[in-house]
Amino acid sequence: MSTNTFGRMFTVTTWGESHGPALGATVDGCPPNVPLEAEMLQHWLDRRKPGQNKFTTQRQEPDQVEILSGVFEGKTTGMPIQLMIRNTDQRSKDYSDIMEKFRPGHADITYWQKYGIRDYRGGGRSSARETAARVAAGGVARAVLQSLAPDLKITGYMVQMGPHRIDRDRMDMDQIAANPFWVPDANAAQIWEAYLGELRKSGNSVGAVVEVMAAGVPAGLGAPVYGKLDTDIATAMMSINAVKAVEIGAGMAAAELTGEDNADEIFMGNDGQPTYSSNHAGGILGGISTGQDVVCRFAVKPTSSILKPRQTITKSGENTEIITKGRHDPCVGIRAVPVGEAMLACVLLDHILLHRGQVGENQGRIG
Amino acid sequence: MSTNTFGRMFTVTTWGESHGPALGATVDGCPPNVPLEAEMLQHWLDRRKPGQNKFTTQRQEPDQVEILSGVFEGKTTGMPIQLMIRNTDQRSKDYSDIMEKFRPGHADITYWQKYGIRDYRGGGRSSARETAARVAAGGVARAVLQSLAPDLKITGYMVQMGPHRIDRDRMDMDQIAANPFWVPDANAAQIWEAYLGELRKSGNSVGAVVEVMAAGVPAGLGAPVYGKLDTDIATAMMSINAVKAVEIGAGMAAAELTGEDNADEIFMGNDGQPTYSSNHAGGILGGISTGQDVVCRFAVKPTSSILKPRQTITKSGENTEIITKGRHDPCVGIRAVPVGEAMLACVLLDHILLHRGQVGENQGRIG
Amino acid sequence: MSTNTFGRMFTVTTWGESHGPALGATVDGCPPNVPLEAEMLQHWLDRRKPGQNKFTTQRQEPDQVEILSGVFEGKTTGMPIQLMIRNTDQRSKDYSDIMEKFRPGHADITYWQKYGIRDYRGGGRSSARETAARVAAGGVARAVLQSLAPDLKITGYMVQMGPHRIDRDRMDMDQIAANPFWVPDANAAQIWEAYLGELRKSGNSVGAVVEVMAAGVPAGLGAPVYGKLDTDIATAMMSINAVKAVEIGAGMAAAELTGEDNADEIFMGNDGQPTYSSNHAGGILGGISTGQDVVCRFAVKPTSSILKPRQTITKSGENTEIITKGRHDPCVGIRAVPVGEAMLACVLLDHILLHRGQVGENQGRIG
Amino acid sequence: MSTNTFGRMFTVTTWGESHGPALGATVDGCPPNVPLEAEMLQHWLDRRKPGQNKFTTQRQEPDQVEILSGVFEGKTTGMPIQLMIRNTDQRSKDYSDIMEKFRPGHADITYWQKYGIRDYRGGGRSSARETAARVAAGGVARAVLQSLAPDLKITGYMVQMGPHRIDRDRMDMDQIAANPFWVPDANAAQIWEAYLGELRKSGNSVGAVVEVMAAGVPAGLGAPVYGKLDTDIATAMMSINAVKAVEIGAGMAAAELTGEDNADEIFMGNDGQPTYSSNHAGGILGGISTGQDVVCRFAVKPTSSILKPRQTITKSGENTEIITKGRHDPCVGIRAVPVGEAMLACVLLDHILLHRGQVGENQGRIG
Repeated sequence: MSTNTFGRMFTVTTWGESHGPALGATVDGCPPNVPLEAEMLQHWLDRRKPGQNKFTTQRQEPDQVEILSGVFEGKTTGMPIQLMIRNTDQRSKDYSDIMEKFRPGHADITYWQKYGIRDYRGGGRSSARETAARVAAGGVARAVLQSLAPDLKITGYMVQMGPHRIDRDRMDMDQIAANPFWVPDANAAQIWEAYLGELRKSGNSVGAVVEVMAAGVPAGLGAPVYGKLDTDIATAMMSINAVKAVEIGAGMAAAELTGEDNADEIFMGNDGQPTYSSNHAGGILGGISTGQDVVCRFAVKPTSSILKPRQTITKSGENTEIITKGRHDPCVGIRAVPVGEAMLACVLLDHILLHRGQVGENQGRIG
Repeated sequence: MSTNTFGRMFTVTTWGESHGPALGATVDGCPPNVPLEAEMLQHWLDRRKPGQNKFTTQRQEPDQVEILSGVFEGKTTGMPIQLMIRNTDQRSKDYSDIMEKFRPGHADITYWQKYGIRDYRGGGRSSARETAARVAAGGVARAVLQSLAPDLKITGYMVQMGPHRIDRDRMDMDQIAANPFWVPDANAAQIWEAYLGELRKSGNSVGAVVEVMAAGVPAGLGAPVYGKLDTDIATAMMSINAVKAVEIGAGMAAAELTGEDNADEIFMGNDGQPTYSSNHAGGILGGISTGQDVVCRFAVKPTSSILKPRQTITKSGENTEIITKGRHDPCVGIRAVPVGEAMLACVLLDHILLHRGQVGENQGRIG
Repeated sequence: MSTNTFGRMFTVTTWGESHGPALGATVDGCPPNVPLEAEMLQHWLDRRKPGQNKFTTQRQEPDQVEILSGVFEGKTTGMPIQLMIRNTDQRSKDYSDIMEKFRPGHADITYWQKYGIRDYRGGGRSSARETAARVAAGGVARAVLQSLAPDLKITGYMVQMGPHRIDRDRMDMDQIAANPFWVPDANAAQIWEAYLGELRKSGNSVGAVVEVMAAGVPAGLGAPVYGKLDTDIATAMMSINAVKAVEIGAGMAAAELTGEDNADEIFMGNDGQPTYSSNHAGGILGGISTGQDVVCRFAVKPTSSILKPRQTITKSGENTEIITKGRHDPCVGIRAVPVGEAMLACVLLDHILLHRGQVGENQGRIG
Repeated sequence: MSTNTFGRMFTVTTWGESHGPALGATVDGCPPNVPLEAEMLQHWLDRRKPGQNKFTTQRQEPDQVEILSGVFEGKTTGMPIQLMIRNTDQRSKDYSDIMEKFRPGHADITYWQKYGIRDYRGGGRSSARETAARVAAGGVARAVLQSLAPDLKITGYMVQMGPHRIDRDRMDMDQIAANPFWVPDANAAQIWEAYLGELRKSGNSVGAVVEVMAAGVPAGLGAPVYGKLDTDIATAMMSINAVKAVEIGAGMAAAELTGEDNADEIFMGNDGQPTYSSNHAGGILGGISTGQDVVCRFAVKPTSSILKPRQTITKSGENTEIITKGRHDPCVGIRAVPVGEAMLACVLLDHILLHRGQVGENQGRIG
């Protein structure tokens, strides 16, 4: 019942603060005999790493992950896997300002109100650095998925930054890695670059929408009611810092559809598997995967740390003003892309194990 | 780890199928000595009851709830509370059609693919009747909230039906109970009535957006990372049948905001409590309540059971066509309003108990 | 986190009080497509039923179980199975005595101290009637075990009543059903009959030790550290009313053994499977099953309701005396036998599902 | 649902292997603002430390604990507390023998059969070194208990070694720290010293019984049925390596008592609190604490690593013989004393938090 744990059978408990000695994830329930090396996790962490271009925080963290347990001679043993990332860039800094003042849009005031104590250095536990631990844990999940569902492929990308949406007709997945925004639209990348550059210079920030999809998901993952696959995806994505909304398939737009338009009609495919006329459902019906692409999106609010002065109060209850200096991202949505992928990997693996546990290999056959 | 259980400390496990003998909820972790009578739960169930007007299914279910345990001499005892609703309107019906054919947009095909067996009568476990159990359980939560947080008030209403949104400048909470749509806008009610009447006659259906807000929520509810208050709200709402998206505060629109616009500035109020210039956060910062109104929204897809013929396949793998006859709602979003309220009641109570457990009465004081 | 739930993947939540309208169990995580009828559960309930001879309470409860959900056309569907037993023998009775006085050895005083309210009728939630729900749930587990581990056989029996232990050299499993004590020793049955008859007449009661063993348990069930198979068995057995101790294999006697004597030496059997020189381990090493018989024992304290006057206090804090009249068992250990079997069935099934979920079908081979 | 996690609200997840880089515990749900320093945990670890006298393993581990998260400026923050102990004494050693052969009484064979892989170095995850993490976590629990229940005092000691039991008439708690056995009986200490010295020289080992009691436990801790305080204690103790039995209060001896003898009669004490004529219940009635001393005992089997040759098999299925050389304890029961104390501290704190969460400060008053 830990509020720092995620997952049912494949569980991830993250720990650590932004400026403490280290942070990490305790991963449990991992199947044994899966090849796993720190380098495999590092690959995913490096994608998330800050300081790679001018659009992400200039904090220079190597984010080097160590595997402290649960792996023996390059393979998982089925025991808990402890992943640790040392915090190396804890530069001594003057925190007197945020020690007394609550930064608007940050967790400063609520942590204080709840606990009566908070590690104010760099946001402490509420820092986006916590997501490094998720990416590392997601790397474990991906390693297992490679064994259990080799056709499964997870891809995350940005589809909106501020007022600018991608043009879905131009979507080209090969573009994702070719720009600093993980955006599958070369044209959008250009527009965003100019737009975000301007915002950054003015000390402002902006929100974004990230889409994550998984192809090759077997039909039958999920469970009715509270353990729905889409519910667990929503749980996963909403738990990411700064996320304010989660959509599955058509998402909010489903409200505007009629039943006639929304119904994804079903046909028998040439491969003897069901195929669908469309995918408004986002690959999930009644909480259980259909075998279509699983598609979700989430909205990330603009970075709250900006150079514009904002009104706030102090711990002692006085009105004041604050400017949040420091190394920050003008659009945290960018760095949320690898995090969303990692979370989806964890959810899908969890449901593969749950399905295998409750149902085994048997499934209802069609035809 | 039951996939039919919701909640951490105040837990709700629903059970039952649409056309079995009964359905209900096992509610556990309820504080003792709280006044509770079946009539109090019936009050909320009656609000959700189908067949009240032409816009909801004509299935005539009294939905009479019985308390089988956990209450003694009109008070909760701290023991599990078993809530049972008998299914009385199980009219014998010809199910041969849906027994073999999978209705598009329904869980028919995925339940079959996952379990290799399904109770096809009226959707079985995936029927929206399951939400009656949630409303009953939410009634228990409300009874406890009345003791523990008497100022807390939860209100749900529709803000969009198909393409028609309410005009927020016209919002009048007194209108909610005055129309069949729970819409706080008399003008919208009129437009929606004509619009939905037309759709219903044509055998079609439409989606909707429901907003649920809670006023009087104490600051300090929630927890960092995976037990965030907003995460648990997203979990709760996304688990409701037909929901495809969940928003907190500004929701998807947060993507379009700049940091400057999004920051809810903080001031000291005249009552010695913090007050905010706006509520883009939806009453939650860093996963913990601020004391502002908690605001969430969810999109409900259009009813999948429509009178329009749709393409589908049979269990034996043949292409065919289906028309879903029967008693159905042209807009299930309407009946989702009391369900959303019930879920929010459960989440808030759960976090009140969790906070009291971990932190006790102490909180950080401001001023 | 419900304190009324038992199990990890195959979960059982019991609910209900002795003199409320009904009691039962919500069983979740059950594999689909397993044949299940109420009669199969009734078979096990009838074994536990009171009033079958003069050594068990004369309360006449038919203990008729109804399956309210999760079964369709005689097979489990993978959905929650709600099992309900109506309380029919709620004879109106004068409870004024135990309403004010706390019966020594009963939960009366602690329930009051904890909750400030208690259903005093027949012990309410702390009544041994709760174990009927366990036996019904255990029946579900056994039905599934029959599919998943057809060679697995669970047998419970008494090995001690008061000062009288069975003679292990005389053990004859066929005797278990041939006497009112489930004792596998005809000689002991005779001695116990005389002994318990005497005690019963004098209004006294006595404790007992029950042993439950499972043959045909596959090697590899369990998990290291907190999810050990023996830990989960201890949890299961200690949760049964009146149980004060649980032993695995050699149990308390392990304290007296030397390492040389305790080591169960390993040999290759003729069937190509490991075989052991002895079974001090009770079939479990490092928390994981070896394939040997799993053997546990638990001590049941004497029935606290006796006709001897005992000193106690009232709710208002006055010293007084109490005699607990009514229909009671002189040795509740007898009726604990089917309960212990049911609990072991639940634990073993739970671990079969967990193993299948985490590890799948693969196991380390020897030879 | 992690099988490496213990606790409901105050949760402890241990991780790590005997010869990996480190091991530790992730502690979550800890109340905020509790003074905590690594030195406070080190105090308890030092009590458990091996190599302190000739009766415990000569492995020289400083067992230095580091707090990596959840503590800020000497106080807990309510965030997860990561405790790490580096493994420093990983002397390079020839493991070829136990790599291929399964040591009788050890988890070697079952880990292999379950997972198909095992870290054989020093027992890997099944090593008693895992209990160091428990002791550290128990230190956190004790620090919190000091704030929440300052009168609560936990004391563990040995009451039996092999055939030698303590004389309860001679019990003197001041003796516990005065001998290498934690035995509260100076006479027993002398006898045991001679007895164990002999056994050690002969390369043999022996079992033991440890008793742990808590004085000053508030009435009202625990919950009915599956969350009983005694159930959670049994779970805690049975999860410790080498434990084969757990007793509460009278324990196995309850089987021999009559109802008349077993009933702890209740009186009003001079302090206005209930008092009891005896404590067969071990301070727990119906799963809930009475306010009397909570008393439990557990049996520890003899160390399986002995210098006597034993029969076993190899991974490839051949019969062979093994002698387990190395640095080992002739009676692991000795080092189990601080572990049992730590586990009881965790269970009691967990139930204090649970009680506060569900029930709050109110309790039923007597008088």
